[in-house]
Amino acid sequence: MADLVTVTFLPTDKQIRIPIGMSLLEAANEAGVQINAVCGGKGSCGKCRAKLLKGSLSEVSSAEKRLFSRQQLQEGLILLCQRNVLEDTEIENLANLLPNETYTPAKGNLLDLTFEVDTPVSKTFHQLTVPSIEDQVADLDRVLNEHSSLIKVDFELLKEIPSLLRKANYRVTSVVVNNDLIALEEGDTTVELYGIAFDIGTTSVAGYLVNMIDGKVIASASATNRQGIHGADVISRIAYTNENKEGGLTRLQKLVVETLDEVVVKLLQRTGVSKERVYTITLIGNTVMSHLLMGVSPIGMATAPFIPGFARSLSGCVRDLGLKILVGSTRFVLLPNIAGYVGSDTVGVILATQLDRLAGTWLAVDIGTNGEIALASGSRLLTCSTAAGPAFEGACISQGMRAEPGAIVKVDIDEDVHLEVVGNVEPLGICGSGLIDAVAELLRLGVIRSNGRIRNPEECPVQLSDAVKNRIRRTERNSKFVLYTGQQHEVAITQKDISELQLGKGAVRAGIELLMKELDIEAHQLDGILVAGAFGSNLRPESVRGIGLFPSIELNRIKPVGNAAGTGAIMALLSKKQLQAANDLPKRVEHVELSLNKGFSQSFAKAISFQER
Amino acid sequence: MADLVTVTFLPTDKQIRIPIGMSLLEAANEAGVQINAVCGGKGSCGKCRAKLLKGSLSEVSSAEKRLFSRQQLQEGLILLCQRNVLEDTEIENLANLLPNETYTPAKGNLLDLTFEVDTPVSKTFHQLTVPSIEDQVADLDRVLNEHSSLIKVDFELLKEIPSLLRKANYRVTSVVVNNDLIALEEGDTTVELYGIAFDIGTTSVAGYLVNMIDGKVIASASATNRQGIHGADVISRIAYTNENKEGGLTRLQKLVVETLDEVVVKLLQRTGVSKERVYTITLIGNTVMSHLLMGVSPIGMATAPFIPGFARSLSGCVRDLGLKILVGSTRFVLLPNIAGYVGSDTVGVILATQLDRLAGTWLAVDIGTNGEIALASGSRLLTCSTAAGPAFEGACISQGMRAEPGAIVKVDIDEDVHLEVVGNVEPLGICGSGLIDAVAELLRLGVIRSNGRIRNPEECPVQLSDAVKNRIRRTERNSKFVLYTGQQHEVAITQKDISELQLGKGAVRAGIELLMKELDIEAHQLDGILVAGAFGSNLRPESVRGIGLFPSIELNRIKPVGNAAGTGAIMALLSKKQLQAANDLPKRVEHVELSLNKGFSQSFAKAISFQER
Repeated sequence: MADLVTVTFLPTDKQIRIPIGMSLLEAANEAGVQINAVCGGKGSCGKCRAKLLKGSLSEVSSAEKRLFSRQQLQEGLILLCQRNVLEDTEIENLANLLPNETYTPAKGNLLDLTFEVDTPVSKTFHQLTVPSIEDQVADLDRVLNEHSSLIKVDFELLKEIPSLLRKANYRVTSVVVNNDLIALEEGDTTVELYGIAFDIGTTSVAGYLVNMIDGKVIASASATNRQGIHGADVISRIAYTNENKEGGLTRLQKLVVETLDEVVVKLLQRTGVSKERVYTITLIGNTVMSHLLMGVSPIGMATAPFIPGFARSLSGCVRDLGLKILVGSTRFVLLPNIAGYVGSDTVGVILATQLDRLAGTWLAVDIGTNGEIALASGSRLLTCSTAAGPAFEGACISQGMRAEPGAIVKVDIDEDVHLEVVGNVEPLGICGSGLIDAVAELLRLGVIRSNGRIRNPEECPVQLSDAVKNRIRRTERNSKFVLYTGQQHEVAITQKDISELQLGKGAVRAGIELLMKELDIEAHQLDGILVAGAFGSNLRPESVRGIGLFPSIELNRIKPVGNAAGTGAIMALLSKKQLQAANDLPKRVEHVELSLNKGFSQSFAKAISFQER
Repeated sequence: MADLVTVTFLPTDKQIRIPIGMSLLEAANEAGVQINAVCGGKGSCGKCRAKLLKGSLSEVSSAEKRLFSRQQLQEGLILLCQRNVLEDTEIENLANLLPNETYTPAKGNLLDLTFEVDTPVSKTFHQLTVPSIEDQVADLDRVLNEHSSLIKVDFELLKEIPSLLRKANYRVTSVVVNNDLIALEEGDTTVELYGIAFDIGTTSVAGYLVNMIDGKVIASASATNRQGIHGADVISRIAYTNENKEGGLTRLQKLVVETLDEVVVKLLQRTGVSKERVYTITLIGNTVMSHLLMGVSPIGMATAPFIPGFARSLSGCVRDLGLKILVGSTRFVLLPNIAGYVGSDTVGVILATQLDRLAGTWLAVDIGTNGEIALASGSRLLTCSTAAGPAFEGACISQGMRAEPGAIVKVDIDEDVHLEVVGNVEPLGICGSGLIDAVAELLRLGVIRSNGRIRNPEECPVQLSDAVKNRIRRTERNSKFVLYTGQQHEVAITQKDISELQLGKGAVRAGIELLMKELDIEAHQLDGILVAGAFGSNLRPESVRGIGLFPSIELNRIKPVGNAAGTGAIMALLSKKQLQAANDLPKRVEHVELSLNKGFSQSFAKAISFQER
């Protein structure tokens, strides 16, 4: 057995005992220190930068030499993914740690949804007759004879029934989901009936604990998707399974399940609901997340023609997935996917916005690393997916971060720059909405040209204040615009950041254009654009229009709808009818594949420019 | 880690490395040396007697002192269950080893059954279209779209579908059982379709490999039920689970599954059929065996009111049971039980004999440790179970053994004794049918009185030959009648053996009487008695009538029907209609509980006597 050494991670002071030779990134993961390793541990994103305080590590890598100056290396700067532990070690994380709790509850939900609570779970209290020599009916049959004869029993439950019936003196509550007897409880427990809706994001997993009797969400919780250690986006996760043919897929499956378990624990702890009273869960996510959850290889989606392993809805017991906290017989339903990059999360958005039933012509967009776009008009419902890139989530931006304390979320510029920072603390970086704001303002003021280039101060419009002009810095390789200068550091957006945003907005805009062209729809015909997700909650319609992300429509027609995907998962949890609607959706939807579409390439090339069309 | 020592078992020369301190009985079990430990390792049955040839063991136990003389102990006689291993040891087994292969194929089957092969398994060959950017249907959906939309996929299979489809170039055969897609195979494999019917006996497990296209049984195999190490009969097995609350049930569950796996291996090896081509299995057994298979406690059946944990049919995947050889998604169906001591094996007998549909009045009996009795007359169908005891299977008889090489199976007595021995070898012991023969002959000749007592030679009828008379031996405690005297040993039946047989036949006869009384039926109204099982195959109607096991009817109305239970399992495997009939049977049957029935006690007391009524 290998010798063990101790690694201590500051500032959280988390400790872990690991075998000598393990990489620091793995050690951090084991210790529960979540690192946003965007590149999947290849040393290219620099997001896992840290400082060695004590102990010794394997040698400096070429990736580190590229990233750090000689002085920085001497000061002990390292990348966690590049170093292996040789002895007891103390490390200070310098990267933005992903907090464990990042879910922002939906706000600004456009839709006041009402639907009937009509769950597939039924609980029935039975006062069974006590067996006697004249009534030798078997224990299980004594219970099932109260139901239709088609009911099947969960085998693990069956093992408990004989002792349970006697303990309960034959006064029991049965729990049936569809045609499965999944639980039997002592006494009358019919008033306790819960379910959980999960939204499995590439970055974080949100869960909603729902009282299935009155349909109320009684708690929500989230956790960072533990798969993050193997790459920040779906493409790196697919690559990880491909590069680790032995066990890579299994490992990612286990990590997402552990994340689900973590969310379950939080939900139960916060509410005091017993795990035995949770009978069913629904799950949504993008198609790759769905595949990783089921342990099905997503490799078919990596290259054309982008074929998923499955699309239709799957259901079974949580023990089949490996969930450990809930009772094994708890039922799960994974909602259907539409295509390789239009997952059940989009099905959730359509369900929650009722996009397929709205009168008129509506766009719905859910922008993360991928932009999922749906366009409904009359009886037609089109979807597409477009590689929005990481800019909208603040990743791959030099000082990008998610919308958490220290992130610049809003930027106004007049005589000088005015910032809104999450938590009202000193700015540490900038999130997607802050970037969009800043670029929109700089475009409006002429600091950025329509091709995206940052002007030299002397090229800027004359009416621009000196305070603003002085924030423009030119270096040999790059230009940048400084938003904040503090004692120790500054926060700026670089020319490269603007290019990343251009690529992202170009892809989304081109996707929208293509769907609209498909249905011959002009911008003025759009009744509204529904913007789902956290991105939608923080955006300012004027900035979004300013950078040309959306077709030019009146600002008040751009409507954030909150976490519509999660809402869809809750609806499918509470209502058989809504679940059926979700299952029927993929057949109704016309999916447009953009990746090899020539019209798309042309639109994309055009949409990269900030020139308003 | 404990030190390991080697134990060698002669005459089979099987070796096993075990930790110091393990009991020899466990070691024998681990080594695959099957010991018929009737008492479940308590030192009371003496069936695990052996001789220590080399090495040293823990001290002589009080059970051994009771069983062996001082001289025998000095010679090294031991009970395997009473001794622990202290160093490398060599042991010679003296008890009858149960051979690994004990199943005798059904013979003398009365019924020429014809039924339509109508299996729930369907195989379909598909030439699927190859995906393209214009046809992005997911892999699973591409297959399932060829079927009804209700089909569900096995999750383990789902993981393999993406790579399989590509490897097979989209030419695949799907396997659907009911509404479950359980397999997908490369190319066209529609002509290969197999299933296995299992008959789980308390003593041995038989399996029949069936070609489900033409309905032919292509191989049968059996193995000793490995649970035997924890007791020979269902009562000792129940006791074992009760005495070993931690893990006893789990251990018995595992042992029967290992036995099933052993049978599967034999069937596949004998036929060359690939395990991937076996899609469904049916299982029958007595109610206790069914419970142990499912891991459900049988304790409710140990005492009045004798309530089973379940009675209805159960189905699922073999991986739920823990079977290891067959593919995990292979479906299983465990046929329904009727009552605590009338199991799915009786359902199989009724199915195979079509007892519920025969015109007239028929008895069916299946005699093992328990006698299961069914009486059909008109629209009524009654069953009961009676504790036949071990005598009919040759257990608890001083020199009892099963019908295997060395067993006396037939006995004729005229001027002297004439024996028929399995394998035509020197007699080693006597099996159930031999015992019945011998007792019937000795009753006929007046050597045994109608109360069961062996007469002294001088009390015997004068016409009895001296050769026969001289075989009567009287000791202080016991009398016996010697059937065979060899160089080394003799084979005899003792007064105690006759008493055991009287108890057994009394119980069966009383059960029959009670059912007949319930329907007001006299012996002369019986159209026939169908005798199922191995017992039926070897019996001689005149001997059976001679000891008064059955009501007095003409000899040609006593009809052996072979392993009807196994035939029933095959029918349920091959035909959905027959399976449905099996599932409907328990509702039709009127079960008569004998255990606390006063009429039964009176009948039983009377039926112990050999006096013809």
